[in-house]
Amino acid sequence: MKGKNSILEKNIVSPTKEILKEQYLKTRNSTVALCKYLKTEDYVAQPAMDVSPPKWHLGHTTWFFEYFILIGYADRYKEYNPSFAYFFNSYYESLGNRVFRGDRGNMTRPSVEEIYQYRSVVDEAIIMLLDSIPFPSGELSKLITIGINHEQQHQELLITDIKYILGHNPLYPSLFPQKQTTPPSINSLQGSAEEYLEVEEGLYEIGTSDTDNFSYDNERGKHKVYLHPFQFLNRLVTNGEYLDFIEDKGYQNFTFWLSEGWDWISRNQIEAPLYWHKMDNYWFYYTLTEGLTKINKNSPVTHISFFEADAYARWKNKRLLTEQEWESACLHYTPHPSNKNNFMESLTFEPRPRENENSLQLFGDCWEWTNSAYLPYPYYKREPGALGEYNGKFMINQMVLRGGSCATPVSHIRPTYRNFFQTEKRWQYTGIRLADSIS
Amino acid sequence: MKGKNSILEKNIVSPTKEILKEQYLKTRNSTVALCKYLKTEDYVAQPAMDVSPPKWHLGHTTWFFEYFILIGYADRYKEYNPSFAYFFNSYYESLGNRVFRGDRGNMTRPSVEEIYQYRSVVDEAIIMLLDSIPFPSGELSKLITIGINHEQQHQELLITDIKYILGHNPLYPSLFPQKQTTPPSINSLQGSAEEYLEVEEGLYEIGTSDTDNFSYDNERGKHKVYLHPFQFLNRLVTNGEYLDFIEDKGYQNFTFWLSEGWDWISRNQIEAPLYWHKMDNYWFYYTLTEGLTKINKNSPVTHISFFEADAYARWKNKRLLTEQEWESACLHYTPHPSNKNNFMESLTFEPRPRENENSLQLFGDCWEWTNSAYLPYPYYKREPGALGEYNGKFMINQMVLRGGSCATPVSHIRPTYRNFFQTEKRWQYTGIRLADSIS
Amino acid sequence: MKGKNSILEKNIVSPTKEILKEQYLKTRNSTVALCKYLKTEDYVAQPAMDVSPPKWHLGHTTWFFEYFILIGYADRYKEYNPSFAYFFNSYYESLGNRVFRGDRGNMTRPSVEEIYQYRSVVDEAIIMLLDSIPFPSGELSKLITIGINHEQQHQELLITDIKYILGHNPLYPSLFPQKQTTPPSINSLQGSAEEYLEVEEGLYEIGTSDTDNFSYDNERGKHKVYLHPFQFLNRLVTNGEYLDFIEDKGYQNFTFWLSEGWDWISRNQIEAPLYWHKMDNYWFYYTLTEGLTKINKNSPVTHISFFEADAYARWKNKRLLTEQEWESACLHYTPHPSNKNNFMESLTFEPRPRENENSLQLFGDCWEWTNSAYLPYPYYKREPGALGEYNGKFMINQMVLRGGSCATPVSHIRPTYRNFFQTEKRWQYTGIRLADSIS
Amino acid sequence: MKGKNSILEKNIVSPTKEILKEQYLKTRNSTVALCKYLKTEDYVAQPAMDVSPPKWHLGHTTWFFEYFILIGYADRYKEYNPSFAYFFNSYYESLGNRVFRGDRGNMTRPSVEEIYQYRSVVDEAIIMLLDSIPFPSGELSKLITIGINHEQQHQELLITDIKYILGHNPLYPSLFPQKQTTPPSINSLQGSAEEYLEVEEGLYEIGTSDTDNFSYDNERGKHKVYLHPFQFLNRLVTNGEYLDFIEDKGYQNFTFWLSEGWDWISRNQIEAPLYWHKMDNYWFYYTLTEGLTKINKNSPVTHISFFEADAYARWKNKRLLTEQEWESACLHYTPHPSNKNNFMESLTFEPRPRENENSLQLFGDCWEWTNSAYLPYPYYKREPGALGEYNGKFMINQMVLRGGSCATPVSHIRPTYRNFFQTEKRWQYTGIRLADSIS
Repeated sequence: MKGKNSILEKNIVSPTKEILKEQYLKTRNSTVALCKYLKTEDYVAQPAMDVSPPKWHLGHTTWFFEYFILIGYADRYKEYNPSFAYFFNSYYESLGNRVFRGDRGNMTRPSVEEIYQYRSVVDEAIIMLLDSIPFPSGELSKLITIGINHEQQHQELLITDIKYILGHNPLYPSLFPQKQTTPPSINSLQGSAEEYLEVEEGLYEIGTSDTDNFSYDNERGKHKVYLHPFQFLNRLVTNGEYLDFIEDKGYQNFTFWLSEGWDWISRNQIEAPLYWHKMDNYWFYYTLTEGLTKINKNSPVTHISFFEADAYARWKNKRLLTEQEWESACLHYTPHPSNKNNFMESLTFEPRPRENENSLQLFGDCWEWTNSAYLPYPYYKREPGALGEYNGKFMINQMVLRGGSCATPVSHIRPTYRNFFQTEKRWQYTGIRLADSIS
Repeated sequence: MKGKNSILEKNIVSPTKEILKEQYLKTRNSTVALCKYLKTEDYVAQPAMDVSPPKWHLGHTTWFFEYFILIGYADRYKEYNPSFAYFFNSYYESLGNRVFRGDRGNMTRPSVEEIYQYRSVVDEAIIMLLDSIPFPSGELSKLITIGINHEQQHQELLITDIKYILGHNPLYPSLFPQKQTTPPSINSLQGSAEEYLEVEEGLYEIGTSDTDNFSYDNERGKHKVYLHPFQFLNRLVTNGEYLDFIEDKGYQNFTFWLSEGWDWISRNQIEAPLYWHKMDNYWFYYTLTEGLTKINKNSPVTHISFFEADAYARWKNKRLLTEQEWESACLHYTPHPSNKNNFMESLTFEPRPRENENSLQLFGDCWEWTNSAYLPYPYYKREPGALGEYNGKFMINQMVLRGGSCATPVSHIRPTYRNFFQTEKRWQYTGIRLADSIS
Repeated sequence: MKGKNSILEKNIVSPTKEILKEQYLKTRNSTVALCKYLKTEDYVAQPAMDVSPPKWHLGHTTWFFEYFILIGYADRYKEYNPSFAYFFNSYYESLGNRVFRGDRGNMTRPSVEEIYQYRSVVDEAIIMLLDSIPFPSGELSKLITIGINHEQQHQELLITDIKYILGHNPLYPSLFPQKQTTPPSINSLQGSAEEYLEVEEGLYEIGTSDTDNFSYDNERGKHKVYLHPFQFLNRLVTNGEYLDFIEDKGYQNFTFWLSEGWDWISRNQIEAPLYWHKMDNYWFYYTLTEGLTKINKNSPVTHISFFEADAYARWKNKRLLTEQEWESACLHYTPHPSNKNNFMESLTFEPRPRENENSLQLFGDCWEWTNSAYLPYPYYKREPGALGEYNGKFMINQMVLRGGSCATPVSHIRPTYRNFFQTEKRWQYTGIRLADSIS
Repeated sequence: MKGKNSILEKNIVSPTKEILKEQYLKTRNSTVALCKYLKTEDYVAQPAMDVSPPKWHLGHTTWFFEYFILIGYADRYKEYNPSFAYFFNSYYESLGNRVFRGDRGNMTRPSVEEIYQYRSVVDEAIIMLLDSIPFPSGELSKLITIGINHEQQHQELLITDIKYILGHNPLYPSLFPQKQTTPPSINSLQGSAEEYLEVEEGLYEIGTSDTDNFSYDNERGKHKVYLHPFQFLNRLVTNGEYLDFIEDKGYQNFTFWLSEGWDWISRNQIEAPLYWHKMDNYWFYYTLTEGLTKINKNSPVTHISFFEADAYARWKNKRLLTEQEWESACLHYTPHPSNKNNFMESLTFEPRPRENENSLQLFGDCWEWTNSAYLPYPYYKREPGALGEYNGKFMINQMVLRGGSCATPVSHIRPTYRNFFQTEKRWQYTGIRLADSIS
């Protein structure tokens, strides 16, 4: 598995110093590249509690390397600016006070320029640290690898937060200097016909105990689950199909909704996915590449809450997969993400219509809401210390999503990967996979 | 199983007319008996959104029988008062508009007297309906049985809501005319030593497909689950043990808490279970029998949120059971609730210390928070119509509780019974069962 | 002025013991009489923050006599129940902690019966105190007189709070056992034609330095004001006239509204006075005597906020009076309230159409919103002690109302009397007097 | 009065074209100058509802000229960008929809650069318009003058909003590139001794009917008021004096506070003026010139709410002036603002200690809270159209402030000028003038 290409595919656990440096620099540079077309003003705003200012992401990911690595491992490293921990700590209670989350958008200083300066200093120090040792210890290697994975998660957030900032501006600016015309190949593609794939009843193993490749603590501990027979749709639900739900008054009929979801759409007057606007009887949506544009009916529907995914499935007389079913199906049918899937690297930042018969869209395009609550696996224990706050303390009142999206770096995802969000969240690239039990 | 005693033990599915009448009247009368010592004023208040005024419970349970049965099945029955549906509908969207939940306590009319009158009229009509037919149809029988089970659920809520109303009054009045001295037997009992019982790895079956006895749709569909080996405490956690957690600064140390739980205790300045008060360095709590009294260290701790149960378990380096584990363990060790358990019928309305070596306290005393989210079983489908709103639409963002409490009627509970509440709720009699994986 | 009748007309400052006793008992009994037709349940509810439960008013007015008088002046008086201060203190910071205002409706105990018992004990003790002394000292006399005036204020609140409780119940019950048919004389009366009365430019004196008759500290300190010439309408604005404003889309046109008022009606979707309901294209309102009934177009419009009074006046191209103008006009035209005015004693609890040419409706019917902020008069100083909290601390962000209403006891009102409420409040009997400057 | 210097002193009503151009350009350039040291990021944030992003002020003042003048008067002017009205309308209901106020800080586009571009285009068009006509009509002249005065108001808001943005950043950056050391002259100056100046009882005239010089509609209509004798402090209250109040537990003693003020400080845990921080037992405050620095005890206290000003006065057994008293005293003692007062032009952006015996500090330094509600003068009528929304619709629940501050342009202020804010606002340069009645 290891080798030149593996850098692109996976974050392995005990890489050589060279691979580690290459992965580190690749990830760090790729973050900066995502901000290439931002105006300085765009780095500052926080239009919703969940949406962090781009400059905060740039600082926070850097602080993560500084605090978890440089301060402990780099002997002569001098903290860049002691006040930065206050600015850039996200939620680590172990690591002291921090700016109240909702105030991130009020922090006009440190400036964007200074944060880039901070990035350079930390990058240099990390490389110098690696250069100064013959071989990274397991501990150091693990921390750097976590830092890289952590930054990849923030790359995804950076994209969705930039989309939120620009997509809620009445000018609906495209991120790119020239408004891009979507390649005709994409728009002309027909979404393929519905087909359901079956999975047999029986004992399956999910989770990972792999010691060669990186994984988060929340997916660790390979264990058995018993599944009853089920089938699942061979692709994601499309905008066109979702439009049928809207036009069938799906948002006005309580029978399709969970009680909490019904309250949520009523209170917030929600009648379509996020970024959708009805103008002169046509539906448009905002995309980073095209600004405001007519919806593509063949593309997967995205930016929907769990409540909407669940209501759509009920309207179709189907259901969502559990995460155990998703993972078992994935391992059976397409166990490896590939560069052909629609990931961050394709730079379209929108899900694409299913392009060929082989792709089940299990990886990339949209995170798929499952009907599983985010809870610990059988043998899960929190790590001690600040890293113990990474995943475990969020294991309540969130639902699991699987498969990655068009904003996920390809090397970040795998079949066992567990993402999680609250049921009303929809600023991420979330989508719908239909399923049903076989009786 | 059927026969004279079964009325007390279970709500069977196809009872004879006589059994149905007996069960009906027993349940209805027992609701009224719970209100015996209330003052008229006590029937009116709603001191929290979750807490309904006692007179609302009396009206709502009656309306349930009127709307689901009399209006459809009793030919010449004339609706008691058409406006009552507006007052007494709880959450059935199918059945029209209703008083906003938070306004229940503002409705001083209809008066208590009139609601009792309403109960009599409906009771008479139900009995007349049963008397008028040779044998209740399966459909009618099912509806009456659901009505009875529904009323039993409201008996439990009636007790906990009365406790909330009186327990938040600065006079801390006992419900009973004479303040009762707790029988010495209860206070002198020592909580038994900690012992852990083991359950082996393997396939288990949970849920029910029983067609003889009543069960809710949410527990139906017997199905296989694979469990890894675990052990569980042979009793509930006591007040004395929980006090150790408090005194060890458990409420001040974020490492024991889920992130959302830590926010919740911080925002609400929570430092002990509901109803606990520290006065002159002693801990007191409010009980319905004794008013404000010193806590009994041997009694199970109760009125705690899921967050507190989970934090306590983490502090003990243990965890909670999943609902699959709980049910499998229950079926293995004590598959039947018994009159010896501490249920509503004992009229103490407080959990009691474990009284003998045989009792594992799996039934009665306190509902046990599990670490399972309330989600559908593999083959679950919502029923059509208003009854479809009974359970399914709440299957999100709640956690499962098992085993019943000191406010649950004995005939209402069974090993497969799934109760559910949001993670911060604690006005019910909730408690802690410790468990751990065996590796 | 003094003499037998003065008891009815005014609360004089240094009454004899007998007059004081008579006034005391008359006031206390009249409070109880107002509750004659309440059901026990009606005493408990608090459907809005401003609305106190009737039983709270009964307790609070009693506590006022107990705390300000008995505890200081009655040697052997034993506090009825030390916890009652906690229940029945309204806002006196000087007098310790108290039930949070919004929780008054959650206090089902002490019961109504016990509060009546409390009233009896305090009444007996006050009479015994007066009987035990030859002549009440100025201090004691003043305190009892304040207590009487205080209770009169709560009589008005009792009426408006009962109206709110019953008028927000979907059954819209009349307060009285038989729904009363309004005397035909009232409905047939035509509202008189608009006529404007003039007041000349010049120096006027307002406020009082009268030492014979009771007045509140907020109206004391007679002082000069210079008024420019103005005119005012000879009666209150009627429901019929207000309906014209509604039908002219007055509530939909921002130009008539203060910015804060426009926000208030938008946020609360207000389109008519409180208690108005449009059904099948007719406007109905709730009254205590008739329940839900068609509006009487000749009656003064009432239950409107300052914002609505102000917007109506602007729509009419008129304005409200200032309190200085109101008082000067009142002193000039009708300086004395009379039993012929529509006060609490008439027991209709609704404003009436202007009945004869002599009445300007300056007294009774509706409190008239002025365009004056409630601020101190030139020489105002707060009294020390708890009584200093009676008026002065509320002198901000409220507007002055003048003239009393159909819920005000006749002996409570006078030309110098200053009532005050926040601009959005409308559960009191408030109305509109139009005016304009003469240039 | 007219002449070269008058441009600096006053905004006259019918200026020549040249004077108008000069005033216009002077004002517009001075706005830009205030932003000289901002970083691009500083232009974007809105850390509180009241605080607008600097770039919004730059756009809004420009839009004001474009909409009220260019679109109506400049024949061939083409609207710069039709979407800008949506961004930059503040509160004119007459002029269509607008960005929700709280979202101003989320609008990263149009960029700062584009807004400067917009300013240039509009400036050029205004000058071209003036150049194209021989003499500006009274209407045009009036509109440009209002636009200039409007922009001056936003200059003050720009300064206070910048202070809020930087002063709430944990880095506490000074606005200026080099942290400025306050000239020793300022710090060494002793606040002068307390002296009270008297004003005699009698009839006074306030307000203006001046047709030569600009004034707002809210101050127009010269009219008589009768004042009772009073005296007022010859300077503003100092930080040192206010510290005595703090140290005497002024914030912990309800007797000094209005009820609403007491709730406000309790709810917000307020214990000192805005920008004050206690560190190691010393009091520091944030200033734009020095960043975080020790408070100067001789400087006037500023950034206090009306509640605090009122409580301080009551603690001193004094009161605030009414606006009628303030204006009469001002006209009597120092009727003209002068360049020697501490206005915006001194660029210190902080109130200064009283510097010489002649200055009463009535002008500049701090806006003085009066105890007068902001209400219409006797003959006030709202103007029709959008300009009618400028002042009149805010005449409720605000208090009047007088005299201008260290952030007010000198030519903007006059004795009749009425500023107004809600009672809890304190991000403006507000201060305290003590007064008392003479009996």
